[in-house]
Amino acid sequence: MAPENSKEELARIMQVYGDLKPPERLLLGAGPSNIDPRVLKALTLPIVEHLDPFFAGVMSETVDLLRYAFKTGNKVTFPISGTGSAGMESAICNIVEEGDEVVVCISGFFGDRISDMVQRYGGKSIEVRAQPGKIIEKEAVEEALANSNAKAVAIVHAETSTGILQPLKEISKITHEYGALLVVDAVTSLGGCELKVDEWGIDICFSASQKCLGCPPGLAPITVSERAMSVIRNRRTRVRSWYFDLSTIEKYWIESNRVYHHTAPILLVYALREGLRLLYEERLENRWMRHIENMRLLVGRIEEIGLKIFTDKNHICPAITAINIPKNVNDENVRRTLREEYNITISGGLGELKGKIWRVGLMGVNSSRKNAILVAEALKNALKKEKYYE
Amino acid sequence: MAPENSKEELARIMQVYGDLKPPERLLLGAGPSNIDPRVLKALTLPIVEHLDPFFAGVMSETVDLLRYAFKTGNKVTFPISGTGSAGMESAICNIVEEGDEVVVCISGFFGDRISDMVQRYGGKSIEVRAQPGKIIEKEAVEEALANSNAKAVAIVHAETSTGILQPLKEISKITHEYGALLVVDAVTSLGGCELKVDEWGIDICFSASQKCLGCPPGLAPITVSERAMSVIRNRRTRVRSWYFDLSTIEKYWIESNRVYHHTAPILLVYALREGLRLLYEERLENRWMRHIENMRLLVGRIEEIGLKIFTDKNHICPAITAINIPKNVNDENVRRTLREEYNITISGGLGELKGKIWRVGLMGVNSSRKNAILVAEALKNALKKEKYYE
Repeated sequence: MAPENSKEELARIMQVYGDLKPPERLLLGAGPSNIDPRVLKALTLPIVEHLDPFFAGVMSETVDLLRYAFKTGNKVTFPISGTGSAGMESAICNIVEEGDEVVVCISGFFGDRISDMVQRYGGKSIEVRAQPGKIIEKEAVEEALANSNAKAVAIVHAETSTGILQPLKEISKITHEYGALLVVDAVTSLGGCELKVDEWGIDICFSASQKCLGCPPGLAPITVSERAMSVIRNRRTRVRSWYFDLSTIEKYWIESNRVYHHTAPILLVYALREGLRLLYEERLENRWMRHIENMRLLVGRIEEIGLKIFTDKNHICPAITAINIPKNVNDENVRRTLREEYNITISGGLGELKGKIWRVGLMGVNSSRKNAILVAEALKNALKKEKYYE
Repeated sequence: MAPENSKEELARIMQVYGDLKPPERLLLGAGPSNIDPRVLKALTLPIVEHLDPFFAGVMSETVDLLRYAFKTGNKVTFPISGTGSAGMESAICNIVEEGDEVVVCISGFFGDRISDMVQRYGGKSIEVRAQPGKIIEKEAVEEALANSNAKAVAIVHAETSTGILQPLKEISKITHEYGALLVVDAVTSLGGCELKVDEWGIDICFSASQKCLGCPPGLAPITVSERAMSVIRNRRTRVRSWYFDLSTIEKYWIESNRVYHHTAPILLVYALREGLRLLYEERLENRWMRHIENMRLLVGRIEEIGLKIFTDKNHICPAITAINIPKNVNDENVRRTLREEYNITISGGLGELKGKIWRVGLMGVNSSRKNAILVAEALKNALKKEKYYE
């Protein structure tokens, strides 16, 4: 607890709470990624009110640009005022009512998180599991659908915890054959990996601002098909969450009279618009190709320095590469060396993969030849320090 | 829907999605408020990862400074990664289980919001209502407690929709006599109006970053007493919301090993820390006094130009002043004049008060003699234009 501040206390404390001087890190982990200077500039533009006519225009443009990024014509497309997990919870809590069955595909940490949310909101989670580092097989999804009365199938497109990029087209087809909705976690893929919401028949797709979109964390873009909105509008019970209730947020973000719901994080929306504008300028397809090329370069270099890729090599996510930590190498030591000697951060494993894998992200502005080469070189030197090559 | 971008399309669209050029507004409405340049500067410092040791230090300091702002020693004190309403929902959804009774004090729009949330999470809301612009009387709360089995009393400290500052000390005493928890909405009061969480016996208190703290919107500081945490830890059922589950967020924000929960909005946390540092430098008590003095000046000027205060004058919130819109004066016209001719925004009424009141906020850096005088003068000129004085 902060003490009552006598003048002496104040002097002391002001030394403790000094000016922030963050290190200039190259963020090559699972996200957040570094932020383009243009996005940072947008972040400090003059703030206006959340109901200001100027901001209404900013919102419309942001929605338009998000539709471009998701490749969708969905009316209900906007950023949730929270981080990626808030996007996940919005998707789940709007769909699930007490007793509803949902097929949840789990190929890592974030699939488990979806399953947890389904259960919290009173649903029954029918889990379909893949081995860590492998994709979910469509046959397993079909079996789960055939043996249940599932309202939806939820699946992670880019499983950040294992570096898998999950193929979706066939699973979407099966899901719709069984009359279920397809919910997709695109937290790490949006703006970096091929994703076609309408063409692939995705009903709800959510993401986050701080990965391939290269914006500060704090917003979770989401898009919802008319089919899913119709399910939501015809719920037997109200959505438990007020904050994530899409039917009311829609009135603020999409409808022209903009009924107040909550105070949007104005400056983060400025930043998101700029991040999306950068994407628009580069073009989606070019962005996807850039991420694939730099991931391939990275994978080659990683193998050259004697490490092995954790993920099934046919399905590596272009935004994040998972690497096996060799036996007898200390996870923490290597990451500390990268951080302290190179100012580079990479991520360790989550949950049961802690200590077993590293995760290197090349996302948004950070997906470059230079960074792919640099991080492999730095890893090699850190491993030398650990006497890995002796 | 954004069209496929041929080069011609791209050129056209890049004109549409041009550089953002927000007007430089003086935000004298219900919030967000303007942001101190020091806070804006903190917002663009180099981003690090949410699990970076440097960020761990920033989190600890932010928690410490928040305890100072709330005047509390509560261990569980941190910003929720969402706006003020996310703070409200965190408070409610952690306390309420199916069938639980909560006495909800409603003196305006935000009291109704709390009641809505209680019901969504399966609770029974026992509503105690005040006339708009009046405070909740302690006798009414006592009666509701005597006739129910309430687990908590929820009340708004500064009701942003009516400009009331609600006395809390006696209501707190009664609440605890009945063994209930006291939940307080301090969205508009924290950092601007006298608030003493521990001394007043508040069990859960939540706020927002963009009002008297003068930071960008997107964070909701919350503090929870050990008594409330013990109720939460002994729930019969899990908290419905994953994103707002305080017992798990606590493991990331408070415990020293910092178990990953979600990606904190890093840059907003930098900004919040700086906003709290400004508060610390000024000292809480001086800040409260400044808000009272400028509110009194404003009220005097408002009456001098022939307008009436909407709120019970014994209980005007120092951060926001509600004014009756005179008959035959058009709400929208006056606010448009302020916006377009003075670049000042003030707020209209919410819900049933729309068209009936204006709300002028003097919050954080905006609580100054200059602004109090300026907004009254601007209002007078806007009223002249509406021929109010003829």
